[in-house]
Amino acid sequence: MNIIVSYRINFHFLFSQKITYTKNMKIVQIAPLWENIPPPLYGGTERIVSSITEGLVTKGHDVTLFAVGTSHTNAKLVSVYPRPLFRDHIAWTNIMYPLLNITEAFDREKEFDIIHMHLNKSSDYLALSLAVPIKHKVVFTLHFPYPVAQNRDDRHAVFQKYKDLNYISISNSQRRGGENMNWIATVYNGIDLTPFTLNHSPQNYLLWLGKFNPDKGTREAIQAAQKAGMTIKIAGAIDKLEGANFEYWEKEVKPLIDNHRVIFVGEVDDVKKNKLYGNAYAFLNPIQWNEPFGLVMVEAMATGTPVISFKNGAAPELIKNNETGYLVDTVDEMVEAIGKIDAIDRKTCRLHVEKHFTEAIMTNNYEDVYQKILDNMI
Amino acid sequence: MNIIVSYRINFHFLFSQKITYTKNMKIVQIAPLWENIPPPLYGGTERIVSSITEGLVTKGHDVTLFAVGTSHTNAKLVSVYPRPLFRDHIAWTNIMYPLLNITEAFDREKEFDIIHMHLNKSSDYLALSLAVPIKHKVVFTLHFPYPVAQNRDDRHAVFQKYKDLNYISISNSQRRGGENMNWIATVYNGIDLTPFTLNHSPQNYLLWLGKFNPDKGTREAIQAAQKAGMTIKIAGAIDKLEGANFEYWEKEVKPLIDNHRVIFVGEVDDVKKNKLYGNAYAFLNPIQWNEPFGLVMVEAMATGTPVISFKNGAAPELIKNNETGYLVDTVDEMVEAIGKIDAIDRKTCRLHVEKHFTEAIMTNNYEDVYQKILDNMI
Repeated sequence: MNIIVSYRINFHFLFSQKITYTKNMKIVQIAPLWENIPPPLYGGTERIVSSITEGLVTKGHDVTLFAVGTSHTNAKLVSVYPRPLFRDHIAWTNIMYPLLNITEAFDREKEFDIIHMHLNKSSDYLALSLAVPIKHKVVFTLHFPYPVAQNRDDRHAVFQKYKDLNYISISNSQRRGGENMNWIATVYNGIDLTPFTLNHSPQNYLLWLGKFNPDKGTREAIQAAQKAGMTIKIAGAIDKLEGANFEYWEKEVKPLIDNHRVIFVGEVDDVKKNKLYGNAYAFLNPIQWNEPFGLVMVEAMATGTPVISFKNGAAPELIKNNETGYLVDTVDEMVEAIGKIDAIDRKTCRLHVEKHFTEAIMTNNYEDVYQKILDNMI
Repeated sequence: MNIIVSYRINFHFLFSQKITYTKNMKIVQIAPLWENIPPPLYGGTERIVSSITEGLVTKGHDVTLFAVGTSHTNAKLVSVYPRPLFRDHIAWTNIMYPLLNITEAFDREKEFDIIHMHLNKSSDYLALSLAVPIKHKVVFTLHFPYPVAQNRDDRHAVFQKYKDLNYISISNSQRRGGENMNWIATVYNGIDLTPFTLNHSPQNYLLWLGKFNPDKGTREAIQAAQKAGMTIKIAGAIDKLEGANFEYWEKEVKPLIDNHRVIFVGEVDDVKKNKLYGNAYAFLNPIQWNEPFGLVMVEAMATGTPVISFKNGAAPELIKNNETGYLVDTVDEMVEAIGKIDAIDRKTCRLHVEKHFTEAIMTNNYEDVYQKILDNMI
């Protein structure tokens, strides 16, 4: 790990601060075990872990990935379980396999410079207590909202106990309620741009895409489209497992679908998704919660489609207001914003993603964090 | 902790080995958080932890109990939560509060000579990884069967990883499937004898008492009574939460109740329980599983009532065959054994409990274990 290879101007921590890069850092990535790395379809955290892992390997680092056996990686793979846990119907609440996975990595900490733990499920919190004796080399990324207030007092209490460990947020807004934690950086999620192409000539429908649940605001998106007198396509997965989400779909969304002005598209693959995004006049994102990131906004912009979002969660950090879309507070403001979409340059939307939200940028940013830890600057 | 106070002949580890006792050991007891210590009603592990804690305080040790705030103890009480978790409807799968409870004790390990962790729920397993750096002063009691084979490969794998820690079994039979673990002692559970009085003149009914589920063999007990031409009383709690248990009650047990020869008693308090046990001609225990202990057998014998049990789990360790009851393999053998009950002396049953299964004996045995650890004999 001791060969210095290059300088790179770094804008993420301090303006024009120079970092001397170490080649061949020994880095651990600890992944969730319920899905392969990368995931075949859905799996936000799993995809991010894969992107970082492969990106770091490409950059010449010595990366060890702790993940299930059927994962695909160019890193060294260590597996306490041969295949995704969900395939063997192991409950989401299982703590035994996460315990084996996490302790396997921590037991071998002397072999590594950096241990990067991705906090995804409640069982992952047990890594916090294990990190205390070696906290200088451990970083945690939160892949869920900081557990403020309602019903998550328990998780909040655990974070407060371990607030001095090194935490990375995936947006600044994610830190709300846990401002006193030792946040060492925000590293935005980055996407693989390959499937997404800039479309200069969209059609005249609006788009909503996501998992149907009250938080995501499907109903409000439809209302905005109706008030604006425009067609809306709604695409995504119906959650049949979570009662409240299925009820939302059945009672609040399904009755509004006429497949004429409100068109249901269902789940789509990458090729169709690119077309669906790219041909949209605007993407509507009336989220009802403080979503810590919001991949759909980035994907839409990657095809040139402007995003009109409620001003919640990370939306103000992902959208440049008046340049790549609009930030609004109400359905009526959303309708008003639809009337101003022509003022947005679709190329600007695409460039915004290229500049801030790619896998490569995310990987560089994590590498910067690791380097600063090695240099005792964190 | 350095004042030597007494000698006591110890039969539990090696015949007539002498132990020099240390006064004022600094001992931690880590309890489950879902119920008070002691529990108001049901709660096997909670009652055992309370007995050990109060017993050790009485013996002059400096005991710190990690349990919920409304617990009653003469030890020092440390609470990460003000009242039983179940009162606040916190899920059994919650790991946050157990994590806070366990780490609170382990963080302060330097203040203590012995940390005694009671393994009760899956969340408790996280204590295993924390014990590794200080394993010489940590002991674990298993309050559930060793997780062999079916569906519990996950727990087995965790135990195997941490097999070198100090484990205490509550019966020898409990070790099955995990024989290679570092078992340092068997300490049988002990009961408070106060509510139980020896009854020399029982009535002529048979008794089954427990939670209604297939493992406990309610149906087989009724069958044996019917074949023997005797009345049986069945007492205990109907489990409405666990579908399979409720179905067992509805389909296999309830149809057999006629309240003439098969009499349903329901749940009983201590006073009624003592009468119910004491007046029974024999206690039937046709368990269908390897129960690691079996409190009902000990309670029955404490009132002088002989126990006829299937030869599973700890039964052969709790019953002296032909002296305090009979060990059998089938319902027909159980019927045969009912015919031989008059050969059992009820006083022998009571004495057997007084000699082996009281709170005081259990506490002494745990004290012996701690002392051996302090003396580096374990």
